[in-house]
Amino acid sequence: MTDYREKYLEMLKIVEQKIDEYVKFKHPTSIYEPFRYIMDSGGKRIRPMLAMICCGAVCGEPERALNGAVAIEILHNFTLAHDDLMDNSPFRRGRQTIHLKWDEPTAILTGDVMVGCAYALLPNFEQNRSASRIYEEFTKALIVVCEGQALDMEFDRKPSVVLADYFEMIEKKTAALLTASAAIGARCGDADEDLLKLIKEYAWNLGIAFQLQDDLLDLTADEANFGKKIGQDIIEGKKTYLILKANEKALDLESRKLLDNFYIHHGLPEEKVPAVRAMMQQYGVFNDIATEIDSFYRIAKSNLEKLPQSEYKEMLCWLTDTLLRRNY
Amino acid sequence: MTDYREKYLEMLKIVEQKIDEYVKFKHPTSIYEPFRYIMDSGGKRIRPMLAMICCGAVCGEPERALNGAVAIEILHNFTLAHDDLMDNSPFRRGRQTIHLKWDEPTAILTGDVMVGCAYALLPNFEQNRSASRIYEEFTKALIVVCEGQALDMEFDRKPSVVLADYFEMIEKKTAALLTASAAIGARCGDADEDLLKLIKEYAWNLGIAFQLQDDLLDLTADEANFGKKIGQDIIEGKKTYLILKANEKALDLESRKLLDNFYIHHGLPEEKVPAVRAMMQQYGVFNDIATEIDSFYRIAKSNLEKLPQSEYKEMLCWLTDTLLRRNY
Repeated sequence: MTDYREKYLEMLKIVEQKIDEYVKFKHPTSIYEPFRYIMDSGGKRIRPMLAMICCGAVCGEPERALNGAVAIEILHNFTLAHDDLMDNSPFRRGRQTIHLKWDEPTAILTGDVMVGCAYALLPNFEQNRSASRIYEEFTKALIVVCEGQALDMEFDRKPSVVLADYFEMIEKKTAALLTASAAIGARCGDADEDLLKLIKEYAWNLGIAFQLQDDLLDLTADEANFGKKIGQDIIEGKKTYLILKANEKALDLESRKLLDNFYIHHGLPEEKVPAVRAMMQQYGVFNDIATEIDSFYRIAKSNLEKLPQSEYKEMLCWLTDTLLRRNY
Repeated sequence: MTDYREKYLEMLKIVEQKIDEYVKFKHPTSIYEPFRYIMDSGGKRIRPMLAMICCGAVCGEPERALNGAVAIEILHNFTLAHDDLMDNSPFRRGRQTIHLKWDEPTAILTGDVMVGCAYALLPNFEQNRSASRIYEEFTKALIVVCEGQALDMEFDRKPSVVLADYFEMIEKKTAALLTASAAIGARCGDADEDLLKLIKEYAWNLGIAFQLQDDLLDLTADEANFGKKIGQDIIEGKKTYLILKANEKALDLESRKLLDNFYIHHGLPEEKVPAVRAMMQQYGVFNDIATEIDSFYRIAKSNLEKLPQSEYKEMLCWLTDTLLRRNY
């Protein structure tokens, strides 16, 4: 397979430039400074890139999706600003979170103004005849992402979470925004309904696989490149696929004790992480999740195969492989 | 002048029904229950009513603006949910605020999903050919209201606020959303640009007068009907028109001491409220604000006069008089 890294980085530069140009230090700086801070703090920019490439895959001119792509990246960062506050997370991408570097009201209000600034970037009807559909995709994503975060928070208080609940949550919290990114990109490229359906299915499957991969990496990543502590989800008491699957399968006394402690204390101390990892290994949970990831990955790839031939289609194949084969 | 109270209440019923019908207990209830709670807690519904009547004033069919009107009311309530949390206010309209009845993350996330639900109500291009303009008005209002709240919060930390800062803040925090309400109503009624300009000017002037009136009522309202404590702004250290004007005018030693204490301690104890009121009286500050209110009121009324004759134009005149002559 061709390596699209160089072409990807070229396109990424255009996205970064647009972000940089749009997110100015406007007045009042008390909200626009933290807005710029969070947008400047890096991140993989997967969502805007997905929008750009999907636009290319249906029409050949990715830059038609540029504003929509940046709108989605702003929406994504808005969710991070508010989620970090709600979860009381001190760091994100190796930097202090907004509510810690400034304060809680600033994190709330910065997130709020970001939503407005994201909407302000979406094309109007004079710029794109699918403007109403693009707005609808964007609004649906905003609503569903909030619902996903609500479910995620409910999980903390609810002992009886099962895998079906988990899949509903990641569908809303992760897959929905990736699907919206792809759909908005394709809409900006005037995709017909058949192409659009394929693109959305692709992105949805990619999104689920991507989140499962994220869960898996929490316990198996190469710590030096990962950017966060190994076992963070276990320490924080997150009910990920791994925990829920282990809870279904583990029967021996020691494993039950470990899991019961995880549930009762909403997480485990760091020194218990190796034991959790050994238990996952023992019960084949890492194999289970790898099988799941592979299954969503295959569907995503088969969706892509049905797209008309183009270098952007190839680029989506390359991106999908790159994202789902990362080990950090 | 005809009393439009009955007709107003009829229209209000339609707005309330639409709110009731739209804001359902959806899943997950952890956010849709507080969403319904805040929408159910009353309020004057001035913004959606303004949208409906302004639509009537340009086209004669107010119900064309119904969805947009409800979208604005949801946006307004979103700002209340987040402002109450940022200001740490325990009560709103005589009921516990969301962050107190539930918790802070719930107040944040409920506000966020409300923004999405508000956007979801705006007409698309198939429903209204001004859809893109309506979206733009709405987005601008969202951004500007956040900027207004940011300025308001900056005021708390800034000793040197002057009346010009105050006017910028209320323009953004209050007048912008009333202007958007009127503009969206008029857009839903396919107003031409001249009519639109008049309607927006009217609402802007009404908004400024309304906020000044609110500041005045804090110290002069009839407490039994007011629904909040007299002098609350003074107790909370809010830099309202009254305080800023008094700070410009008051020179005697006792008044300076009172004002310096207000500035240093970010507010005064309740027992100092009568002294503040006496000082305002002494320096003619109540007269000053009454003159300001009257001046914006007159401009608003003269904007209305230029509208084509209709019962909705009359209704706007009646509403303007009712709002600006209230004593609670």
